[in-house]
Amino acid sequence: MLRRLLSSLGDPPIEFQLEWSGERIAPVAVAATERVRVADRATLRGLLTDTQIRFGDAYSTGQIEIEGDLVRFIETVFQGLNRPSARETIAARVAGWLHRPRRNSLSGSRDNIHRHYDLGNDFYSLWLGETMAYTCAYYPNSAATLEQAQVAKMEHVCRKLRIAASDRVVEAGCGWGSLALHIAGRHGAKVRAFNISREQLGFARHRARALGLTHRVEFVEDDYRNIQESAEVFVSVGMLEHVGLDHYPELGRVICRSLSNEGRGLIHSIGRNRPGLLHPWIERRIFPGAYPPSLGEMMQIFEPWGLSVLDVENLRLHYARTCRHWLERYDAVSDKVLAMFSDESFVRTWRLYLAGSIAAFNTGSLQLFQVLFTKQDNNEIPLTREYMYSN
Amino acid sequence: MLRRLLSSLGDPPIEFQLEWSGERIAPVAVAATERVRVADRATLRGLLTDTQIRFGDAYSTGQIEIEGDLVRFIETVFQGLNRPSARETIAARVAGWLHRPRRNSLSGSRDNIHRHYDLGNDFYSLWLGETMAYTCAYYPNSAATLEQAQVAKMEHVCRKLRIAASDRVVEAGCGWGSLALHIAGRHGAKVRAFNISREQLGFARHRARALGLTHRVEFVEDDYRNIQESAEVFVSVGMLEHVGLDHYPELGRVICRSLSNEGRGLIHSIGRNRPGLLHPWIERRIFPGAYPPSLGEMMQIFEPWGLSVLDVENLRLHYARTCRHWLERYDAVSDKVLAMFSDESFVRTWRLYLAGSIAAFNTGSLQLFQVLFTKQDNNEIPLTREYMYSN
Repeated sequence: MLRRLLSSLGDPPIEFQLEWSGERIAPVAVAATERVRVADRATLRGLLTDTQIRFGDAYSTGQIEIEGDLVRFIETVFQGLNRPSARETIAARVAGWLHRPRRNSLSGSRDNIHRHYDLGNDFYSLWLGETMAYTCAYYPNSAATLEQAQVAKMEHVCRKLRIAASDRVVEAGCGWGSLALHIAGRHGAKVRAFNISREQLGFARHRARALGLTHRVEFVEDDYRNIQESAEVFVSVGMLEHVGLDHYPELGRVICRSLSNEGRGLIHSIGRNRPGLLHPWIERRIFPGAYPPSLGEMMQIFEPWGLSVLDVENLRLHYARTCRHWLERYDAVSDKVLAMFSDESFVRTWRLYLAGSIAAFNTGSLQLFQVLFTKQDNNEIPLTREYMYSN
Repeated sequence: MLRRLLSSLGDPPIEFQLEWSGERIAPVAVAATERVRVADRATLRGLLTDTQIRFGDAYSTGQIEIEGDLVRFIETVFQGLNRPSARETIAARVAGWLHRPRRNSLSGSRDNIHRHYDLGNDFYSLWLGETMAYTCAYYPNSAATLEQAQVAKMEHVCRKLRIAASDRVVEAGCGWGSLALHIAGRHGAKVRAFNISREQLGFARHRARALGLTHRVEFVEDDYRNIQESAEVFVSVGMLEHVGLDHYPELGRVICRSLSNEGRGLIHSIGRNRPGLLHPWIERRIFPGAYPPSLGEMMQIFEPWGLSVLDVENLRLHYARTCRHWLERYDAVSDKVLAMFSDESFVRTWRLYLAGSIAAFNTGSLQLFQVLFTKQDNNEIPLTREYMYSN
């Protein structure tokens, strides 16, 4: 069965080693670059019945160990899954494992967000870098550091939105507040930033005070559905993944209600080339309720309200780079993570998540879309996009 | 009833004058800037029962005359139709008038294309300008001429696609050949350009000979569905409008089959902010079978095949400008058009079409999308879009 699994993946250079028998299974005539060590029969059985969930869980507990490069291993598997033939043979099996993401009702969202983002600011501070931006960065060149690329991302977003000091900005899902503080500090605009993670908001408010920006930035503990203010700019970076497809038209309604006639909006989100659920292990263990939409699905935010999409940019390879930088830092502080949670499987779970994210963005399993939009009849839009790039 | 019509449009500054009675109907307390002169009772009756078709037809025959600025008049009407309240009250009536566009089967497409594009190269030569490009131009600045903007559009497309001399390019729907000849002449790439308009192809082949480019450009009289070649670049500018929604996945299959693994593709098409049929008068009298998709609908080309959208640019205001330039030239040569067809109503039909197009793009009733894409696993993509803008 392992042989058949390997064959369905196009016989990649991967070898399985069964620890209890010493047996090795690998495609014929391929020198394996990565080896999967399986600790016991129960793990193997699990792997063959529910690969996607069990692989991750067994990696977390250490019953599966990868020798070689973890990211390259996952990339190899994803490339195998992307093959048209694998699509057909595996699709039916995968369909059985798929389950709907957790609900994102007002209270459901609170639970889902709490489970991920309230793990502790100290934990995220260890590896996100000083911006504490937990979304795809923007690398103006391949030499940029994580910090430079995160600031460049904020500037890229501000440029696209043409933020002026006189603008009122609404931010939906503000994380630890880096973009809101950047907009207020660098561009002088007034920002109302919404979030339902209490841990993040505490941190963000502390930063606003430290930076002397409390007169321009207000961090609001509330759901995006309750946004009522009028604004010239609506921005949301890395929240849509948690909104859930059912709620897209509602998000569009909130945007329409908020945005002035010449207002501009930007949504930045993980996405997909075609509709498909998030990897079930990631949805279960990392991001409950999350769903990365295809671009067509994202249009369900805009089309019911006739919002006009001006510009879409796919930053997939930037997210692979960002996750690579996160993983490097994470691996460098994994002893501190272990000390913090006293749980080796937690350390391994998060390593797998970060490595898997690099692989997903590198192989095109995931995309990153920035969508710039305005109201239908707003003609106050620049003729070309050069304004985003000129200095 | 006219008063109710005006009221449903938000009481715009428009006055109706009924020629047989001298009666004038206008919104109260608004000084009308445009006047609609209706020649007889039958025209008025038609206008009130099937506004969208009858207005255009009566304008063509001269039974309706617009005093004032024709473009501004249509913009005023479109703005009225865009109002949320008009949407609700008028939507139901409009729904009844809507009809499906003509079919775009292989033979249906030939008929549809023949009816518009085979009106005569001499006719189009009168007002399209020397590039004979009959698609949205790209104005690097607002002072650019039509010719400069058409060449800039071709360069903009070539830049996005990063066309190199070693590339094989397939073009689906090549019009009079301007882009194919630009790609071969300016960039040295080999182009196979498909079209089913015989008139256009004759013109394009003549140009290729005159420019000494027959070794690099081949103009093929065939349907896009029969494209079989392998190419590094797939480009289609202004054809999708004629493909028909039902055939989008088929177009995607043709693209997938043609494109090499590191290939790039671009589709340039009129579109909409939300799904909706083309204005029925335009579909009936000007573009049989045409349909401008929403961006979500366009994704039906890409998503079934996992093609990865890299970039979307909305050039709506560029198309308003382009149509304005066309209308100016058209009006300047309308005596020649009359001499050519000996048909005043033809002259008026095309004036209304061009004026209506300016209005549609200016009011956001129509959009213009350029979508750049590649295959899912192609990582040979530039990190940023600066390459599109640097000199």
